Formats: sequence, structure tokens, C-alpha cells
Amino acid sequence: MNSYKVIEIKKSVFENNDREADRIRKKLKEEKTFLLNLMSSPGAGKTTTLKAVISRLKDEYKIGVMEADIDSDVDAKAIADTGVKSIQLHTGGMCHLDAGMTEQGLNELGTDELDFVVLENVGNLVCPAEFDTGASKNAMILSVPEGDDKPLKYPLMFTVCDAVIVNKIDTKSVFDFDDEAVIKRVKKLNKNAEIFFISAKTGEGVDELCEWLKKQTDEWIK
Amino acid sequence: MNSYKVIEIKKSVFENNDREADRIRKKLKEEKTFLLNLMSSPGAGKTTTLKAVISRLKDEYKIGVMEADIDSDVDAKAIADTGVKSIQLHTGGMCHLDAGMTEQGLNELGTDELDFVVLENVGNLVCPAEFDTGASKNAMILSVPEGDDKPLKYPLMFTVCDAVIVNKIDTKSVFDFDDEAVIKRVKKLNKNAEIFFISAKTGEGVDELCEWLKKQTDEWIK
Repeated sequence: MNSYKVIEIKKSVFENNDREADRIRKKLKEEKTFLLNLMSSPGAGKTTTLKAVISRLKDEYKIGVMEADIDSDVDAKAIADTGVKSIQLHTGGMCHLDAGMTEQGLNELGTDELDFVVLENVGNLVCPAEFDTGASKNAMILSVPEGDDKPLKYPLMFTVCDAVIVNKIDTKSVFDFDDEAVIKRVKKLNKNAEIFFISAKTGEGVDELCEWLKKQTDEWIK
Repeated sequence: MNSYKVIEIKKSVFENNDREADRIRKKLKEEKTFLLNLMSSPGAGKTTTLKAVISRLKDEYKIGVMEADIDSDVDAKAIADTGVKSIQLHTGGMCHLDAGMTEQGLNELGTDELDFVVLENVGNLVCPAEFDTGASKNAMILSVPEGDDKPLKYPLMFTVCDAVIVNKIDTKSVFDFDDEAVIKRVKKLNKNAEIFFISAKTGEGVDELCEWLKKQTDEWIK
């Protein structure tokens, strides 16, 4: 198993999170490092999706991953095994990461030589949507078992994301899930959102997601 | 369709939430009203489980339901259709309910004549665990698609709950989910937790859950 560091991040001291986020974004742009903030409910498949993406992109980009979790190192272990640079951020009970907390992670990870960094945010559809982390782009995963009504119930999350990734499409046979309803509900909140339908487990649709991620990264680091 | 009220609840003004929660609990005990605080991730099946429970208990108890949601009335509509007294609480972006917010809901619902009230908390495994709502008992739903590692990642939620309800067991064929691992992980955090395995959709295991709920309610209102 590859190793990873565990960082206990502290509550941010910055009063103006948006200003702090803009500063981080500017710095990452100068360093030519693309940062993706990946959000979802607990268990929607962030880590599995990330592993599927890493296996397809790791020869092309220098990748780093920050696994944020309240407790446990389950995800950092899984990501370290893919061979990319990975650290575990412990939020000490905090339900989200803000810009200052993200920067603590970036500093520990070291971004100088990285092209593509992913922040796997805390599993929560509410609080992370309220805090700009300084990421280049925001994405969220909605898994089929959660249901197609989630854009109605957690509208802010769907509004702030550049991409909505519908995961676990391989399990559709046992759930009632209406693709068209989701597309309609997401587009009503956020007409520019890209929507992908994937199974991180079987690999279906992951190539299309990777094409979008490559395009975003290339535009950011060019 | 039966009707329901939508209440915009305000952020609580009480500094000491625990004291406020104890006061609410005492009042409910005097009024002989049992309050269950039901928590879970988004899409774990709180509303479907509640409908299955209501259909089995509504002839025996006078039931009321408070559906808390950031936005939308999806759940209150579903519950109102069962014929029990139901209101929708809008949290205005807040990720949890505290004791003061719960009391605003209880006052609007009117608990004088109710034996069994359920607060369906906001879908979130993090923040609701930190706030005592004044409930008689806390329960959470972990759905099979979320994975058996959740007690490792959201330990506080599993620690504060009197009952852990593992839902969607009808979908086990398409997920890797280890019952014994969950039981072991939950018991390590909370040795007194009751654990139920159910499918709210097919009804499997719901009778056992209802037996437990009846016992808790009878002990509370006797």
C-alpha cells in the first residue's frame, strides 16, 4: 500500500471566504494547477468515481487528491493505492471545507508539480454548497439510489456545480429513477450544468466524464 | 390529496441548546407525546420508511409528522396522503434543526392530542447529529447503497442514535454490503444501539421496527 499523510485541519480564521477563495483560485491559475471540488451525499460514490477517473488520466496529468473526512482514513487508503499523491484531511467534526481549510490542504499536498488536484469534500449535500473552496470547477455526484427528486430538495448544491454526475446507473433495475426528470430539474436550477450518467463500478460513461475533465484542465493550465 | 401547512422556521435564538432540548423533552413527557427524531443521508428512505410505519401504527396512535427540508414540499405531500397530521418545515438553508427550531414546528403542529410525533430531519449525516432536538429518541437510516463503511466515516451520528435502521435490503443483490461489518462497527461506537434491517419498499423487517417504536412510545406516554 502507498502511504499518505493525515492532516488535522483547523477552522478557518478568514472572515471573507469569497475573497480568500478568489485568492486561492488566482494562485492555482498562476501555478497551472486545476482544482476540482467534488461533492455528494455520503455513499454516492466519490472515491470510486475518482479511482475510475484517475486510472484513465494518470498517464496524462500529474494528479493529487485531498480526501476530506470528519474522521477515518478509509478513502485516502483507497486513493493512495492508485499511486497518485494523496493526503487525508480530518475536519474535526466540521461538515464542509471553506477556502482557508482547502488552502491548508493544498499547502500540505504541495501543488507546484501537480496539474490536476481533486478535493473530495465531506459527504453532505447541504453545507459544502455554501462555501467557495477556491476550486477551478465544482462537481457533484448524485447516485441513482438517492432518487431523482434531489434537485428539488437540495437546490443550492445543484446550482453551484459545473457538472452533475449521476452515478450507479448499473443499479437502475432496482430503483425508480427518471433520467429526464433529473435533467429537467437540474437545468431549471442551472442551465449551464453538464450532466453525465455513469457507473464508476462498470466504467460506463466514465470516458465522457474524463473528456470533460480533460477539457476543463487543459483550458485552465494552458 | 390531504392538505399540510408550510412553516418557514427561523434560526434559533437560544444560546444553550441542550438546556432548551431538555425543557422540550420534559414538556412532551408531561403532555404524553413521544417525539422521534429521524435522521439520514439524502435519499436513504426516511419518508418511505415513515409511510410504512404510519400504515402499521395509525390505528393505534394519534400520529403527527414534521417534515424538515431546506426547500420543497415533496415529503409533506407524501405524508399528508397517508391521512396523518403533517406539516412542512422549511429551514431556509439551514442544514439541521436545533431544539428551538423543533419547538417552532411542534407549536405549529399542535401536540396536545398526539401520541407519536416524528421529526424528519434534514438529509445530512453530519450536522443534525450535533444538535439535541428535544426528541424522546433518535433514530437514523443507513441505506444499503451508501455502503457499510459509514459508521467509520460519520461516527457521531451512529453514537447519538438509539436505533440504526438499515434500509433498502431488497437491493442487496447489486451492492456489496456486509451486515456483520455494520453491526460490529455500530456496536463499537454505541453498544446500546438497536439495529434493524428493513426494506421500506417491500415491507420486510418493518414489523420488528414498529414493535420497537411501540415499546418506546408506550413507555414514554404511560
